[in-house]
Amino acid sequence: MATDSELKIGYQGAPGAFSHRAVKIFAEDLNRLEDVTPVSCKTFDEVFARILSGECSHGVIPLENSSVGSIVANYDLLWKNKVEMVGEIYLPIHHNLIGFSDTDISKLVEVYSHPVALDQCRTFLKELTGAKAVSYWDTSAAAFYVQETGSRTIGAIASEFAAVETGLSILRRNIEDHSGNRTRFGVITLVNGHLPAPPAAPFKMSCVVELAHQPGALANLLRNLAILGVNLTKIESRPIPETPWHYRFFLDIEIPFEEVTDAVTSAIGRLSEAHKILGRYKGWQEPAQ
Amino acid sequence: MATDSELKIGYQGAPGAFSHRAVKIFAEDLNRLEDVTPVSCKTFDEVFARILSGECSHGVIPLENSSVGSIVANYDLLWKNKVEMVGEIYLPIHHNLIGFSDTDISKLVEVYSHPVALDQCRTFLKELTGAKAVSYWDTSAAAFYVQETGSRTIGAIASEFAAVETGLSILRRNIEDHSGNRTRFGVITLVNGHLPAPPAAPFKMSCVVELAHQPGALANLLRNLAILGVNLTKIESRPIPETPWHYRFFLDIEIPFEEVTDAVTSAIGRLSEAHKILGRYKGWQEPAQ
Repeated sequence: MATDSELKIGYQGAPGAFSHRAVKIFAEDLNRLEDVTPVSCKTFDEVFARILSGECSHGVIPLENSSVGSIVANYDLLWKNKVEMVGEIYLPIHHNLIGFSDTDISKLVEVYSHPVALDQCRTFLKELTGAKAVSYWDTSAAAFYVQETGSRTIGAIASEFAAVETGLSILRRNIEDHSGNRTRFGVITLVNGHLPAPPAAPFKMSCVVELAHQPGALANLLRNLAILGVNLTKIESRPIPETPWHYRFFLDIEIPFEEVTDAVTSAIGRLSEAHKILGRYKGWQEPAQ
Repeated sequence: MATDSELKIGYQGAPGAFSHRAVKIFAEDLNRLEDVTPVSCKTFDEVFARILSGECSHGVIPLENSSVGSIVANYDLLWKNKVEMVGEIYLPIHHNLIGFSDTDISKLVEVYSHPVALDQCRTFLKELTGAKAVSYWDTSAAAFYVQETGSRTIGAIASEFAAVETGLSILRRNIEDHSGNRTRFGVITLVNGHLPAPPAAPFKMSCVVELAHQPGALANLLRNLAILGVNLTKIESRPIPETPWHYRFFLDIEIPFEEVTDAVTSAIGRLSEAHKILGRYKGWQEPAQ
């Protein structure tokens, strides 16, 4: 089991992945950078499984990206598994072409990366007329693959941290189609394994509610939350596959005063058919420049 | 300009793409299959541009997928461009390995497809240990590429319609990781170019509203809609990049009676800072088996 002095934090990807970077930001924020061991996982399911088994104390998972929207697989895993959300991190996403320093870009025959990253760098890839875009399970793992082969005719698309981890060079920086690309990550841990400690108000709370398909069900819930002075920062509906005409809503809300917390959770319970409070945590603050 | 007798309908992808199939379903639904010319476009932007220029009468664009969530790029294009939504189509998404009938799967060295399709077939691709997954701009275009090369050592992942279009064979059927994968498509046309004619109630209406970041803004709007007997079938918040703390909401609602339509649009206008009615259309009905 992970003890309090060693924080093993699971993330999906190889060292240098964007999620790995988010793990480090979380560790810095806790002032525990030295105690933290990031644990590379192949899949999101593996991140959850390692937390449930006690092998990892925490996990860091992507929840939404400004270009591609919500990562619905992780919302579904949050609903299904007994974990708690204890933090959020926003990370700017910049993609880079990575390879050996003496690689000639015009001679590349293959560029490896995660399919979503390939999709976000279409304009750049179109310019590389001689190169095929090859799908790989992770951006940073693609950079490691380039490094292992020693080849000067292949490159990878990954973060600048992947360049550091692999010792490779950035051949072209910020090759994403759209600037301003950001990903929001959630920090998760076992229910009742709350570290950091629950924050004082104001704080954010994430929850999932299931509502009947009838006029006013959602309006009624939101009106009760509004009366309590609660602000909504995200709402998303998802059809529930097993029960047609019922909807699951993912809500992020800002709780302004400690005193309303109980009234908020009780309203959520009373006005929904099923619900799950995913956790309470400090809303993300951009670090001072 | 497209005249009423010839319907040129833009879609993103090569012939045989899922969007192409959705175009045909729309044409069948209109009883105009013979008048319809599907127009293959490279990008979603191109679909919109061809409608705005009058080169196409309609476009069919993917809006949401049950595995990957909303296609936010298209929602942003709907907000920005003067088009109207006049229909919706739900299509089951099945991926297939496609190649020449005498291709030996175990000898494949490369499998081509759209990055999102590659991402949805990870389990199958993992079994193909000798093959690289190569990213291509479209699923069906990948199948055409295989056909043009004549190679027996490459394959494509695409729809069964792509197999028909290319004359290639399905080497392995339904290779997606998760069954029950569905995509919702929207049919768009020029504002005031409404074909099919606006349906009688009950019908669906899609709209976008911008609301101030204050408790109760959304609750107030939804409560007013609920009082009118309107049901919400989708809601999604998107931060507005240029104006922090303001949110754009994409709403799909069901209008039960013609009589409330004006009251609904007036409530949406009155209770939002900005809004756009994307269109009214018949809600999708699963075809009888």
